[in-house]
Amino acid sequence: MPTISHKGLSMPESPIRKLVPFAEEAYKKGKTVYHLNIGQPDIKTPDIALDAVKVHSLDILAYTRSEGSDEYRHKIANYYKKHDIHLTHKDIIVTTGGSEALLFAFGTIMDVDDEIIIPEPFYANYNGFSTASGVNIVPVISKIEDNFALPPIEEFENLITNKTKAILICNPGNPTGYLYSKDEIQKLASIVKKHNLFLIADEVYREFAYDGHQHYSIMQEESLKEHAIMIDSVSKRYSMCGARIGCLVSKNKEVIKTVLKFAQARLSPPTLAQIASEAALETPQSYFDAVIEEYVDRRNTLIQELQKIKGVKVAKPKGAFYCIVELPIKNADTFAQWLLEEFDINNETVMIAPAAGFYSTPYVGLNQVRIAYVLKKESLIKAVNILKEALKIYKG
Amino acid sequence: MPTISHKGLSMPESPIRKLVPFAEEAYKKGKTVYHLNIGQPDIKTPDIALDAVKVHSLDILAYTRSEGSDEYRHKIANYYKKHDIHLTHKDIIVTTGGSEALLFAFGTIMDVDDEIIIPEPFYANYNGFSTASGVNIVPVISKIEDNFALPPIEEFENLITNKTKAILICNPGNPTGYLYSKDEIQKLASIVKKHNLFLIADEVYREFAYDGHQHYSIMQEESLKEHAIMIDSVSKRYSMCGARIGCLVSKNKEVIKTVLKFAQARLSPPTLAQIASEAALETPQSYFDAVIEEYVDRRNTLIQELQKIKGVKVAKPKGAFYCIVELPIKNADTFAQWLLEEFDINNETVMIAPAAGFYSTPYVGLNQVRIAYVLKKESLIKAVNILKEALKIYKG
Ligand SMILES: Cc1ncc(COP(=O)(O)O)c(C=O)c1O
Ligand SMILES: Cc1ncc(COP(=O)(O)O)c(C=O)c1O
Repeated sequence: MPTISHKGLSMPESPIRKLVPFAEEAYKKGKTVYHLNIGQPDIKTPDIALDAVKVHSLDILAYTRSEGSDEYRHKIANYYKKHDIHLTHKDIIVTTGGSEALLFAFGTIMDVDDEIIIPEPFYANYNGFSTASGVNIVPVISKIEDNFALPPIEEFENLITNKTKAILICNPGNPTGYLYSKDEIQKLASIVKKHNLFLIADEVYREFAYDGHQHYSIMQEESLKEHAIMIDSVSKRYSMCGARIGCLVSKNKEVIKTVLKFAQARLSPPTLAQIASEAALETPQSYFDAVIEEYVDRRNTLIQELQKIKGVKVAKPKGAFYCIVELPIKNADTFAQWLLEEFDINNETVMIAPAAGFYSTPYVGLNQVRIAYVLKKESLIKAVNILKEALKIYKG
Repeated sequence: MPTISHKGLSMPESPIRKLVPFAEEAYKKGKTVYHLNIGQPDIKTPDIALDAVKVHSLDILAYTRSEGSDEYRHKIANYYKKHDIHLTHKDIIVTTGGSEALLFAFGTIMDVDDEIIIPEPFYANYNGFSTASGVNIVPVISKIEDNFALPPIEEFENLITNKTKAILICNPGNPTGYLYSKDEIQKLASIVKKHNLFLIADEVYREFAYDGHQHYSIMQEESLKEHAIMIDSVSKRYSMCGARIGCLVSKNKEVIKTVLKFAQARLSPPTLAQIASEAALETPQSYFDAVIEEYVDRRNTLIQELQKIKGVKVAKPKGAFYCIVELPIKNADTFAQWLLEEFDINNETVMIAPAAGFYSTPYVGLNQVRIAYVLKKESLIKAVNILKEALKIYKG
């Protein structure tokens, strides 16, 4: 039998999907499962986006340009302008989700064995993209005790080697909900300039900033012109994850030129989804206001309920819709599985994402879980109550 | 300024798009350009596919499963059954176009510096996928004189090293239009079994087989169970290139398991396009009959017209909608550019794809072009006439 590649064997399994078979068993037993484990919001997609594909007038569903349709790119540039980010359509490559933008960014700036520094815990699929690209993640630990603030600059500098090509941040953060301050971004800017690195910012949650905090984009930092690569996506902003549209943004012309070559090899981003995404740009502000209000309300509820549980520690998220929660247990993996297999209240249980998969340092975060507040308030209250009761009797 | 990766710098530019700026100049001068250079058919997408997205009833455009929606995968298995290929939905991973299926296949079976043998000329983007994956293409030359038949088996065996992981064929072939016989597939089967390699077949043009020839899929070759990886796509079959839906098919469970990990990292194939593609499976046979008739007619016209030109050599394609044409010139690159920049008949000219980009061996195919017969018959006749007149006066 021919053999699988080392790369293929090393590809991580998604920590979020590992528990799926146990969830499926739970369904079979007739249990209701509250999904606190996934980043698929229950928020309605704006009608304007859903309707745009209903009235399409295509005769031939053709490829668009590899960099995305011109019209759409112009409109994206315009969207950024409203967010005080000034660039042109030429600085934008439309991608198949933020996921593909990340892959293109990795391929464009890193060769096999190169290193990228990422504050952890981080979005678990950064592991997959690194493995697929043959590059190594060098984690710098941010701590729940510090509310996941940026670690001191020296900690970054200590990690820089001649293989380091970039620093990657997620802002606001999945899974931490952490929102970087302007000051923190400027600190990062100073390191990448000093050491001639790229700064990649995954800003797919850019509009999910709460409590009056302003999101500060790396694209607003003029001095980063040649260094900044921003990753964006329509997935969460308009609750249209299934569209698979994102973009890579950079003012570095060599970066854009190279990303375009990767984009050309795969021909085109999805055409129908570009139609929906272009229309989504017309979503009224009232939609976002309502969505943000909803998430803030959910977050507050979640945190309040969690804080009622003895031995639980949680960092208050300032953005996105996740938080990392430390539980009074040893191993979140076995606890999460136990919740699905053994526990229920009136036939209801919860599914949580063990946080270890969001760390690349071994043995860190074993007693933590990520909770996504993508459920309605009443469901969140029920779900946290289930967690509370479960912890009372769990012997792990 | 931080630097681009070696990989990024080595990514090939698409040979098909290199001439685009010259075409754009030609438009500006008011010229009409007949596009013989691209694989974007002018055939209408089946209404059943276009309409399916018009009547969608989604409230949330959500991710599907990473391997594609269950329903769609079941239906794909059923489609194959009708084509005498017997497998289950578990052998299928839905991908973002055949392009992504190729990338996943490369990542699953090859590490950096591994080798893959490909008969050339081959689909130009195999170069891009190889570079992105860090693997090396080892070409085996098929010749226009032999109508691009499979080279003798010894030529493959001579190229096999301990780094060789797979043989990749495109059947029917882009850019040759060559359709492999059952006998040729069985010869390939014997080599891959003997040397414990994978056999990847890019069958995105599987239904475009002409003159009563039957397409023989590697998935029909029982003995290849563990060796065969098939790449497929809705792009050409239903003229819905912009959907970006394809699939990777294999009965090798380790392959599927590994491909799934790559698929999970990028979350989901496009949801709207899966709706359209699922509906497309209901396209009536009459649609295909008409399309095949149209392509055969075009091909016959094209070949007939080309053969009228002195010094032109063309291998008659048995499938797909491309052919390689040898012209009485030295360098097709400069000729193609000259056609756009300098030549016209009544303000009309043609755009052709220089074939060198379809070879990885240097200096081969310099006097060849690829012609895609994706235009109506009348346009093809005009376009070939332009070529003929151009060749009369061209001094290259
Ligand atoms: C931080 C982060 N980046 C990128 C992505 C990728 O999203 P998509 O490919 O749907 O744009 C996600 C999805 O959950 C995410 O959480
Ligand atoms: C031989 C071959 N394989 C794969 C593809 C990729 O097609 P897609 O990604 O649209 O499925 C193409 C497109 O032209 C092709 O010609």
